[in-house]
Order: sequence, then C-alpha cells, then structure tokens
Amino acid sequence: MTPSLTQRFVAEVIGTFFLVIAALLSPSGLTFALVGATLLTMVIALGQVSCSHLNPAVTLGLIAARAFSWREGLIYIVAQILGAFLALGFGQLVDRRLPVAGSHANAVWFESLGTALLVFVVVRIVIAKAAPAASALAIGTALAVGIAIAGPSSGGVLNPAIALVLLSSNLLKGSLLTNLVYLAAPLLAAIVAALIARALAPSEAETPARLSAANPGTGSR
Amino acid sequence: MTPSLTQRFVAEVIGTFFLVIAALLSPSGLTFALVGATLLTMVIALGQVSCSHLNPAVTLGLIAARAFSWREGLIYIVAQILGAFLALGFGQLVDRRLPVAGSHANAVWFESLGTALLVFVVVRIVIAKAAPAASALAIGTALAVGIAIAGPSSGGVLNPAIALVLLSSNLLKGSLLTNLVYLAAPLLAAIVAALIARALAPSEAETPARLSAANPGTGSR
Amino acid sequence: MTPSLTQRFVAEVIGTFFLVIAALLSPSGLTFALVGATLLTMVIALGQVSCSHLNPAVTLGLIAARAFSWREGLIYIVAQILGAFLALGFGQLVDRRLPVAGSHANAVWFESLGTALLVFVVVRIVIAKAAPAASALAIGTALAVGIAIAGPSSGGVLNPAIALVLLSSNLLKGSLLTNLVYLAAPLLAAIVAALIARALAPSEAETPARLSAANPGTGSR
Amino acid sequence: MTPSLTQRFVAEVIGTFFLVIAALLSPSGLTFALVGATLLTMVIALGQVSCSHLNPAVTLGLIAARAFSWREGLIYIVAQILGAFLALGFGQLVDRRLPVAGSHANAVWFESLGTALLVFVVVRIVIAKAAPAASALAIGTALAVGIAIAGPSSGGVLNPAIALVLLSSNLLKGSLLTNLVYLAAPLLAAIVAALIARALAPSEAETPARLSAANPGTGSR
Repeated sequence: MTPSLTQRFVAEVIGTFFLVIAALLSPSGLTFALVGATLLTMVIALGQVSCSHLNPAVTLGLIAARAFSWREGLIYIVAQILGAFLALGFGQLVDRRLPVAGSHANAVWFESLGTALLVFVVVRIVIAKAAPAASALAIGTALAVGIAIAGPSSGGVLNPAIALVLLSSNLLKGSLLTNLVYLAAPLLAAIVAALIARALAPSEAETPARLSAANPGTGSR
Repeated sequence: MTPSLTQRFVAEVIGTFFLVIAALLSPSGLTFALVGATLLTMVIALGQVSCSHLNPAVTLGLIAARAFSWREGLIYIVAQILGAFLALGFGQLVDRRLPVAGSHANAVWFESLGTALLVFVVVRIVIAKAAPAASALAIGTALAVGIAIAGPSSGGVLNPAIALVLLSSNLLKGSLLTNLVYLAAPLLAAIVAALIARALAPSEAETPARLSAANPGTGSR
Repeated sequence: MTPSLTQRFVAEVIGTFFLVIAALLSPSGLTFALVGATLLTMVIALGQVSCSHLNPAVTLGLIAARAFSWREGLIYIVAQILGAFLALGFGQLVDRRLPVAGSHANAVWFESLGTALLVFVVVRIVIAKAAPAASALAIGTALAVGIAIAGPSSGGVLNPAIALVLLSSNLLKGSLLTNLVYLAAPLLAAIVAALIARALAPSEAETPARLSAANPGTGSR
Repeated sequence: MTPSLTQRFVAEVIGTFFLVIAALLSPSGLTFALVGATLLTMVIALGQVSCSHLNPAVTLGLIAARAFSWREGLIYIVAQILGAFLALGFGQLVDRRLPVAGSHANAVWFESLGTALLVFVVVRIVIAKAAPAASALAIGTALAVGIAIAGPSSGGVLNPAIALVLLSSNLLKGSLLTNLVYLAAPLLAAIVAALIARALAPSEAETPARLSAANPGTGSR
C-alpha cells in the first residue's frame, strides 16, 4: 500500500531535479516565482510518494521535529543531491545563449523537458486521484513553469496540437526537422514521463485511476 | 450519469480552443502565465466531463500509463486538433495591431471571447457543484485571463455593469455603437457560453445546481 | 438558514463595488490580475451569501442555463449596477495623481478601503468556516489587492502594527495627523467592515464561529 | 487538545514577524504580492494555532463581529506589535545596499531567514496534517517569498543541495567561508525553525505526524 523506499528515493531525485532546473534555467526576474511554483506542483505530484522534501534543510528540519527518521533522512539527502547534479548536467547540455530555433538539439531538450514535467504531474495526479483544486493548481502550474523555462530556447510549445497550428500557419518555420522536434519530442517525452510517474505508484493499491466521470464503460468495473 | 463521448469530445474542443487562444493571443511576457492559468481553469471546469487533457502529449502519456484507452485517446486527439485550429481561425479573424477601440468588430470579438470564457467556467462550476477553493480559483483565473487577452484590443471590460460606469463617466467614449459593443456583446456571449456549458452536463444526474444557500425558495425542493 | 434577499442584494452591491474599484484604480499593467484576484476573493467571501455573480453577464448566463431565476436575476443586476456606481463615486472622491502622503484625506480613504477589504473577507471566512486552502487564498489575495490599490496613494500599510514600526523608525514621517491616518483609519474601517460582514450571515444558523482550536474556553460550549 | 495562550501568542509574534519582514524587505514592485503571499502561507501554517490574525485591525474587526474576545484580542495585539518590532530589528541588522555576496554576515542572515520561513511552514503543515492543495500552496508560496526576499542580498539559495551544485560549478565562488554560509546556515536555521514549529503543537493531540504513505514502518504504530 505504501511506496517502497526505492520509489521514494526516485521521487526525491525527480522532484529535486525539476526544482533545481527551475533554479538554474528560469529567466532572471522570474526565478523566485518559478522555483516556488515548481515546489508547489511537486508537493501535490509527489506528496503521496515521498512527501516531497526536495531540500536537505527540509529533511533535517523534519528530523529535528521528530517527524522523520535519521536513517531515511540520509537516504533522502543523497537523492536530493543526486537530483540536483542531474539538473546541473542538463544545464550544461543545453545552450541558453542560442535564440529560439537556434539549434534543433537545444529545442528537442527543452520541448522534452517541459512536456515531461507536465505529463509527469498529470499522470501522478490521475493515479493519486487528487481533488479538483489540487489537480488544477498542480497541472496549471506545471505547464506555466514548463513554458517559462522552455520559452527562451524553444518557444515553449509543449503541445503537438499547438505545434500543428503553428506549423500550418508558418508561425513556426516548417522544415521537416522542425516538425519532428515539435511533434515527436513531446510525444516521446510524454511516454517516458508517464512510465516513470506510474512506476512510483504502489503496485496494487493505486492501480491507474480511470476517473469514473471521464471514462464511462472502461475496465475497472 | 457519466458524460457521453460526444460531450467529452466537445469539452476537449472547447478547452483546447481556449488554451490555444491563450497561447496565440496573450500579451508577450505573460504567455507562460496565461496558458498555465487557462489550463488550471479548464481542469476545474471540464474535469468532470473530459478530464481536460487538451494536449495530445497528455493523452498519449495517460495511455502509456494505462490510465486511458487507445480508442478514446484517438478521439480526444482529433478534438484537440480541431480546437486548436478553431483558435487559429479566431486569431486570423481579429486584428491584434488595432489599438483599443480601433475597430468595433474587433472589440465585439474580444469582449465576446472574454465574457464567454468567464461565463462558461461559472456555469460549469455551478452545475458541477465545485468546492469553494476550486470555484474561486477557476472563476478568478478565468476573468484574469479574459481581461489580459481582451485588454489590448477592447480594454477587457467583460462586464456590462462596468461598461455602464465607464460609458456614464466618458471613460469609454459613448457612441451608440460602442454602447452596443460593450453592453450587448457580453450578454449575447454569456447566453451562448451558458447553453454550451449546460449541454456538457449529463442530462439527469447534474440538473443545474440551484445552490441552496444562494437560492432559497427555488424549485429543487 | 439561508440568507435573505436583502442580504444577497447587499452582498452583490459590496462585491461589485470591490470588483469595480479594482477595475478603476489598479495600477496599469496589473489590472487583469487584480480584477481576477478580487473576484477570486469575493467568490469565497460571498459564495454562501449571493453566489458572488458581480456581473450582469454572469447572472444572465446562469438564467440561460436554468440555474437561476429571472426574478432574482433582475434584483441581482440592479445591485451590481449600484455597486459599480458606488465604486465610480469612490474613484471620483480620491485623487490618483497625488503622490503617497500627498494628502491626508486621500490616504485616509485608501487606508480605509484596503483595510475594509481585508477585514470584510476575514470576518466572512471566519463566520462561514471556510476550509484552510480557501481561507488562505481569499485572505492573502485580499491583502495583496488592498496593498496594490492603496499603494500608490497611501503606501498601502493597512496594518496598525506595521504603521507603528514605520512611524517609530521615521519611514513614515510622523506628524500627529499622519499617526491618526495610519493608526485610526484602518481600525475604524475594520469595525465598519466587520459589522457589515456579520450582517450578511443568517441570524441563527451562522452565529459567529469561535474557531475551536483558536478560541479555547470561549463561550459557545 | 487546543493550543495554549502562550502558543498562540508566539504564533502571532512569528507570523507578524514574517509579514512585516515582507513589508520592509521585499524588492519594490513586488511588495503587494509578497506581503499577500506571506499572509496566505501563514493562514495555513498558523491557522490551527492562533487563526493567524497578524494585524490589530483584523483582531479588532473580529471582536466587533463578536467572533473574538476582548481579553484575548489585547494579548494578540501585543504579540503583533512585538513581532513587527522584531522584524524592524532584523531590517536594521542587515544591509540591503550590499550586493549579493557583498558580506558574509548579510548572506548568513538572509539564507537563514528564508530557510527558516520554508522549514517553519513545512513542519507546521506536516504536524497539522494539512490537505494537499493547502500544503502545496503554503509550501510553494513560502519558498517563493523566501527566495524573493533573500535574492538581492544572498542569491536566495535556501537549499544545501542547490548550494552544492552552485559551488561545484563555480556559479557561487567557493571560498571555504562561502561554503559554510550556504551549507551550514540553512541547516542551522532549519533546526531552529523546526523546533519552534513543533513547540506550537498541542503536546498530545498533535504528535508529529508521520505521514503514513511516506513513512512506512516507522514508529507511531
């Protein structure tokens, strides 16, 4: 019923990765808002898995308040440091100085990152059956963060339906390669993010929620 | 009790329409915030109808997480692409370069669009009996998005009571035609949006909620 | 148990007054956000009284969706127009061109307005026993709106404890009259706003909530 | 089960301290948003302790609405004034004119302040078992406020995992003393803030919540 320590470790790695991405790659002037917004969305997306500490000071504080154990705290801190260095690696992989559409590789990374953030949050929320206000806050915030971070490097499309519209109206210049970046990258990233989000759910307790109102006649009944 | 596939299809069309309107017509610098805010408001307004995917990458991610079926997913993606192209059509109908009050036709379109967004969300929320935090978030956000998008083209009034005040104090220059734009357009748009919002409710389960505290003595008892 | 039509009429007047104040007096560039935020806070503060339409287009939309009656709708629209003109009157009373502390009368009006907004929302929420997320959203948003609107004219202090600190450290220049503005005006406004907020509660059903955690040993037991 | 008057007094002191810090030290242009955001986060963090008035006008309004007692109100107002002067003291201790990394002492104060705000809110929320939307709103907002206030003076890192990444990549220049500031100060501040947050919980009713999903197999069962 409860997530395993491995699942919680992975959750802390992923959450801290996104938090540190926001700290490193937010447009200046928006950093405080986007880092706070990323933590907000992760508290909802990961709350049922690892409690979403994402910060050794938070973990230490909870230990001091006798609300968390030392042994698990050390494991959490290792996960947080690992997630932070993964974010640093991503930051060194991409080139923030390139303008939008300056490099297809750059655009692929940012479109994938932003879509992965959105889809990761959506899948976690569907699986965890979050309430409407929490769902809307987490999902809307995740998309805003994703667009803000990807925007200066790829335009922040993060949605193949919007990409189609932009390509068809020449708002994005439509070379075949550009098409692939904006159509294929988010779809691939979505699949990867969804599989990871699903892997964080306890194997039996949280079978993927087929929201009843939205999925009439599907399998769970 | 559950929405029909047609209702869910229409919900995805409308939700993606508003999302792509925000992506195409937001004042630059606010795009990330307004697109995220539009998704937030739609998650609450459409959550009980279609789950508010509004993005083929989200639909594909949920399929990959085994939380959604392939067959329905394809229908959703068609709806999303249709909604996105409707938004493109709206974007081509209006002229963003005109200043506020530069054209009555422009102002009619933007005042109608913004009011329709607000009223669509309010009616969905009343019908779905959303909780206070979710209602307030969705309704306040919908109005902010509507004003931000309509603002540069029509001033973003979206409220006949405010229009009356502006006209009476000559803050809006009061030709008869201007009066009609700011008084009649939002009222007509409100009716259309309300009828569509109502049509998305399952026919019996969700008879329009007459909120009991606010509607003493009305019919449902 | 349910609010009377008079209470609902007054609620629509007050809510529309604050909404139109935000539309008329927000610093330019923030209008869309502050008007949306004011509606958000009023949906929570007035939701249990009048449902917080605050806009004839919203009322008409709900009538069209058969979620509201024509007869009451007309009364609501009269209240909304009245509230909007009261806001216009306030806007004509004050002088936005004066700098902060340019006029004691101006400062009195803005400090009173902002504090009244905050205290009105707090008292409504305590009486209506709103949940934590809704309470925090409504109260934090009300204060942000109040400071943003009062800021350019009075500094937006809205809190006698902060005024004391500013006066003691000469951050506000401390003539006796200034002291009275920043200490007495918010306290008087708070009393008026609180009495109105309380008058909107049904006489017996909603006796003022003495929040149990916060009021150990007080009267209701 | 209910908090003692001492606990509530301390809660009003701490909450008003953070509120007035935001009023005194926010970057200009963000003051309205950050003061409102601080109140939002304190309503959730302190709601179960003191109801989070943080303002004599609010306390007086609740007394006028007969929702609070005179006797306790006077005690609250003393606490609020005390908290406000503590914030003034902090403001006089630090030097806002120094650039980032202009002084190690300055950086220590701001990193400690921001981390203490975040950890205080997290620990209160874990102890009070707040719902997901409230938790996410309060925690994400607390971090955003902390970064915005600390940013101009220390960079607003507030997270030893991020500090490690910045130091390792020379984004923060890594003298030994700098390391200590950004690694040790937040950890010490976290411990102090956590102990205070825990001391505000009623001694038996609210034993530190070991969130069951996140803490399988830990002690409370």
